[in-house]
Amino acid sequence: VKRVTVLGCGRVGATLARDLAADPALDVSVVDADQRNLDGIASLGVQTRRMDLGATETIASAVENCDVAVGALPSMLGFRALETVIACGKPYCDISFMAEDGLQLDAIARERSVSAVIDCGVAPGLANMMIGRCHAELDHTEDVTLYVGGLPKVRHWPYEYAAPFSPADVVEEYTRPARLIEHGRVVVKPALSDAELVDFPGIGTLEACNTDGLRSLIHTIDAVHMREKTLRYPGHFELMRVLRETGFFLKDAIDLGGQAVRPIDVTSRLLFPKWSRPDGESEFTVLRVVVAGRKAGASLRYQFDLYDETDARTGQTSMARTTAFPAAIVARMLASGTFAEPGVHPPETLCRDRRIFDQVISELAQRGVVVEEDVAGVSPS
Amino acid sequence: VKRVTVLGCGRVGATLARDLAADPALDVSVVDADQRNLDGIASLGVQTRRMDLGATETIASAVENCDVAVGALPSMLGFRALETVIACGKPYCDISFMAEDGLQLDAIARERSVSAVIDCGVAPGLANMMIGRCHAELDHTEDVTLYVGGLPKVRHWPYEYAAPFSPADVVEEYTRPARLIEHGRVVVKPALSDAELVDFPGIGTLEACNTDGLRSLIHTIDAVHMREKTLRYPGHFELMRVLRETGFFLKDAIDLGGQAVRPIDVTSRLLFPKWSRPDGESEFTVLRVVVAGRKAGASLRYQFDLYDETDARTGQTSMARTTAFPAAIVARMLASGTFAEPGVHPPETLCRDRRIFDQVISELAQRGVVVEEDVAGVSPS
Repeated sequence: VKRVTVLGCGRVGATLARDLAADPALDVSVVDADQRNLDGIASLGVQTRRMDLGATETIASAVENCDVAVGALPSMLGFRALETVIACGKPYCDISFMAEDGLQLDAIARERSVSAVIDCGVAPGLANMMIGRCHAELDHTEDVTLYVGGLPKVRHWPYEYAAPFSPADVVEEYTRPARLIEHGRVVVKPALSDAELVDFPGIGTLEACNTDGLRSLIHTIDAVHMREKTLRYPGHFELMRVLRETGFFLKDAIDLGGQAVRPIDVTSRLLFPKWSRPDGESEFTVLRVVVAGRKAGASLRYQFDLYDETDARTGQTSMARTTAFPAAIVARMLASGTFAEPGVHPPETLCRDRRIFDQVISELAQRGVVVEEDVAGVSPS
Repeated sequence: VKRVTVLGCGRVGATLARDLAADPALDVSVVDADQRNLDGIASLGVQTRRMDLGATETIASAVENCDVAVGALPSMLGFRALETVIACGKPYCDISFMAEDGLQLDAIARERSVSAVIDCGVAPGLANMMIGRCHAELDHTEDVTLYVGGLPKVRHWPYEYAAPFSPADVVEEYTRPARLIEHGRVVVKPALSDAELVDFPGIGTLEACNTDGLRSLIHTIDAVHMREKTLRYPGHFELMRVLRETGFFLKDAIDLGGQAVRPIDVTSRLLFPKWSRPDGESEFTVLRVVVAGRKAGASLRYQFDLYDETDARTGQTSMARTTAFPAAIVARMLASGTFAEPGVHPPETLCRDRRIFDQVISELAQRGVVVEEDVAGVSPS
């Protein structure tokens, strides 16, 4: 029996804990600063510990007795936790979003012979695995497009969107310039540029725009063209462009009769109720990855499609499921030794090994998250 | 020579002063609290007096020696000025917008044998004259629609609008419920309801929505259906509905970490630069009034169309011109005694007399403001 410690028990952490706790080969312990979050998973029979993970020493003590650690922490704690878990010499699978570049810690992880997999959710995460597999199979990767979106099933005017976190965090995606690859070079474009309409069978027409989500792929995948596009119902992005253009997303304070007010604070407060999903209405996650390239002189085009929605039985959101399951699966690989290569790895590196990719896809399917794969080839003429 | 005192020298007041000063039969004096406004009309050779018109005594002293007074004051001063000018026994023509109902002072004006014409701009103003004339001619007024808008000639994304005053004042029109007449009764609908697209030859397609602009017409015109609709370029109103729905127009403060912030204050500040017209770009005013009814058993349909744009020679905006000229023309009628009926009159009452209507239209045409009139009749079958 291996001991697994889950750092953080938000929606994703709780879903991770539930998944891991179902495995008799694992002894699961969950750590969070908020007792209510821990109470929420009391029925799982896992060990819970209330600890504030803001300090290095607390993180170190939280992972001290485990064989594998899994991170599902707020973005401001992510990098510090990664650094500390590596320093403690524990295998780590992380889905904490962080502004910092976790790959910077690769050399230290190798030195300590620790294996850490980061960005291991859906996108980043599963999408990287798909791209990593194709890139390994192709001689030449020409074009990569990653479409991803989490949306409410019921569309409410005017935004037709629900945010699982603070509107300010979403707005950050709508303002941070997007890095993409064009003709082999990194190009920076405004967020929400290059709008296109894309049809998804059974979902309908969604709108896709550039967002800054490629992260590690920019460094690890040698493609001619590569971009991430976020999906929303058509019209949402235009409203976001209007609010952005008007100044409602500004982080700098404006002076209102001696009062310094940050427009984004007002906007985030006003959007919060408009971007919350009414009780009883479900959400879904859609991911499409298209990779085109050449192998042995022939053109090949891979397309992966994932659609998942709120689990009516458990109430788990597709956002939590699709983010937590890849991490739970990889955590098991770290526990079993299936993957043990030292260093800090993004998911695409892991899936250069086709067996690992196939195992992830197969285990996701067992959890009801089905990835459809289509490979079309054109032989050299 | 009659002495005319103009109260207020903003854009409209200055245009009024210029118009009246050109008349050798008038001796014009202009009063304003701001010396810069008075300096702007120094070249006209009119008498200027710097006085703060916030107090009753100042208004009384300002109109003391005149034969006719004309008001072009900010809305908060409008009603007080009307009351005071009546108390001073001076004929008065007013275009100051006021939230209060000036007709309340009708009995006092009759008592003092003073003739006052209020709301005497374009809409309210000229539009009321058109409706008043038709109503007087018809046996039965069935349907009245008043379309009005002031727009920039050059459309800038996203709002395609320029406000001659503070965005907060425009937003007030977008939030105050609209009173209209349906089936002979006053009905209240949300502002910006009943959107329709309307084509204007040479201008293109504009969008029209309900706004609360009928004012005195609700009481004076006995119509089956009557509504005012404001015109904007298509799409503007939808953005306004989105901002309103989100809460950006709220006048109640929200608490942001102990700071009380009124969303409308932030919004007005951010919209201000987006709603200003770049130097060198002109604006236009469009007014269409449609009145349908029956006369001697036949159906009659009147349509009046006015289009006016920034005067390239003087730089006067069409907003200032179309607002100031009807008041200047009526002020002359008061000075000459052409109109001298005691009481407080809205413009529609004045134009029950067809000769007055014709004179207004003819004098507007002399100033380059052309009203096209089309009357179509269907004889009883």
